[in-house]
Amino acid sequence: MTEMNRQILLNRRPEGMPVEEDFKLVETELPELKDGEFLAKTIYLSVDPYMRGRMNDRKSYSEPFKLDEVIGGGTVSRVVQSKNPKFKEGDITVGMLGWQEYAISDGKGVRNGVPKGIPMSACLGVLGMPGMTGYFGLLDIAEPKDGETVVVSGAAGAVGSLVGQIAKIKGCRVIGTAGSDEKVNHIVNDLGFDAGLNYKTSQNYYKDLKELCPDGIDVYFDNVGGPMTDAAIALINTHARISICGQIALYNSEKAEEGPRFLWKLIEKQAKIEGFLVFQFVKKYKQAYQDLTQWVKEGKIQYRENITEGIENTPKAFIGMFHGENTGKQIVKVSEE
Amino acid sequence: MTEMNRQILLNRRPEGMPVEEDFKLVETELPELKDGEFLAKTIYLSVDPYMRGRMNDRKSYSEPFKLDEVIGGGTVSRVVQSKNPKFKEGDITVGMLGWQEYAISDGKGVRNGVPKGIPMSACLGVLGMPGMTGYFGLLDIAEPKDGETVVVSGAAGAVGSLVGQIAKIKGCRVIGTAGSDEKVNHIVNDLGFDAGLNYKTSQNYYKDLKELCPDGIDVYFDNVGGPMTDAAIALINTHARISICGQIALYNSEKAEEGPRFLWKLIEKQAKIEGFLVFQFVKKYKQAYQDLTQWVKEGKIQYRENITEGIENTPKAFIGMFHGENTGKQIVKVSEE
Repeated sequence: MTEMNRQILLNRRPEGMPVEEDFKLVETELPELKDGEFLAKTIYLSVDPYMRGRMNDRKSYSEPFKLDEVIGGGTVSRVVQSKNPKFKEGDITVGMLGWQEYAISDGKGVRNGVPKGIPMSACLGVLGMPGMTGYFGLLDIAEPKDGETVVVSGAAGAVGSLVGQIAKIKGCRVIGTAGSDEKVNHIVNDLGFDAGLNYKTSQNYYKDLKELCPDGIDVYFDNVGGPMTDAAIALINTHARISICGQIALYNSEKAEEGPRFLWKLIEKQAKIEGFLVFQFVKKYKQAYQDLTQWVKEGKIQYRENITEGIENTPKAFIGMFHGENTGKQIVKVSEE
Repeated sequence: MTEMNRQILLNRRPEGMPVEEDFKLVETELPELKDGEFLAKTIYLSVDPYMRGRMNDRKSYSEPFKLDEVIGGGTVSRVVQSKNPKFKEGDITVGMLGWQEYAISDGKGVRNGVPKGIPMSACLGVLGMPGMTGYFGLLDIAEPKDGETVVVSGAAGAVGSLVGQIAKIKGCRVIGTAGSDEKVNHIVNDLGFDAGLNYKTSQNYYKDLKELCPDGIDVYFDNVGGPMTDAAIALINTHARISICGQIALYNSEKAEEGPRFLWKLIEKQAKIEGFLVFQFVKKYKQAYQDLTQWVKEGKIQYRENITEGIENTPKAFIGMFHGENTGKQIVKVSEE
């Protein structure tokens, strides 16, 4: 077999905001399959904000990406050749096979099959890592109750848009923040949020958020960090729960940023702030998967995908997220379904 | 009855660090007792850091103190006259009868009697509000486990000294921070902490704390806030719990202080920060009371009191806490036992 494989490698570690030169497209020859392995052709691959952290040379919850290696990330692939009895030619698999056109896998961490009636690409979004993240980050960490006010930052993104809709299912009043009028319209008109705030045109986050949350904030689900989070914390109610999912506003900072101290507020409001990683809920994924599949089928959860075509455009799609270019889940389509 | 009563009133609202001119000593005539009331003569009264917040004109978890009214606070008193069948002359009571020599009470919120074998003054400390605060703030909020590393800021204060000792009872390695070598010696040599850090002589909180916590920090119990808290948060382990009890370093700030943003760290470490008020645990006080009484009787918990004499010195004793003058619980002795 001398099929060629196009792959995206980490060329150098980004400083601040990532740029295309931080990545490198290479063409390599695919090795022969060994027993127990299969060859998968990538159909969709996932680019997610958390990956920015792994591009730094700093041990965190997961190992940093290595220079000159394929960048890891979620994939939906078709098995095109197999020496593994569990995976047959033509099977559609979901895994973490990385930013490349083809991958060889021994099947570890790869799921075979996608649910009936659900588009494949959704396995990278609402039924993938962002889905699990939103589900547990809201329900397990923040425990929203009927009638409470929930604020979600980054509300038009893959996780935020889901969190807001789950909060609506749970009977909450939901306000989202996003970076354009188009996104705000989307979360309110398409996704059923009660209101939205365009942080790019707001002159005063605190004042505007206060107007949208006249009864204060019971749950704040944070994808963003920085000044929007400062404003939300200033508005929390007694026994508020703040779920910290992401801090995308800070991921590309080159220096430690400062902000107002607020821990005294947690005392006054008997409130908690909790950070989480989706992996900590791995034993409960099945329940989330069932609920989310049902909600999608019932039309209670809408999702939007931002699909970029071509493996070579993966870095651009990744970088675009930090400039707010995506509404919904950012995906790269590498080959036809 | 024309007995005179000396009282400490709030003369004006402190700006920044409180000064003696913020308070006023007045002498008033005691009114006649009505049916259902009793007259209590204060033996000990309590000054606590949280009171600083109530001196501001800003609604918080409890109402602000009013100008020209007696400042409320914990007391141990002797009943000297009574028209209430539940309180007899000579009874020793524990309540919140305020900074004054005498108080008239209808008995609401007043407990009659102190436990046998426990000094009266301990009812304002280890068996009073600071005791409940330390007990629940550590055990309920932070849930320390055998073998974990616990750091306590303000470790020589009424709450901190107790928290460290409870953590030792629970099998933890305990490090305290305090503002003098004498205090550090006290927590290590008298109270059994494993190590202490003098923040007044430390040139680098992070470096020094890291040296004392080679395995990182699992629980941080915070009385202080500010840069020491920044250092502790930077050293947390996975699944760390941070219990925010007080922020004494900030209580007297006139402007909003800034510090490094750290919410990203909570994600990476799947950690939580929770603020609390002792009142939220009121239904469980009994258990705490039993445990603490037993631990004191068994000698497992030592406590030190800093006793100032004379009602007229109450403001000075209160102000002194913010200058780190007390080791252990600061109390004012108003009359003989």
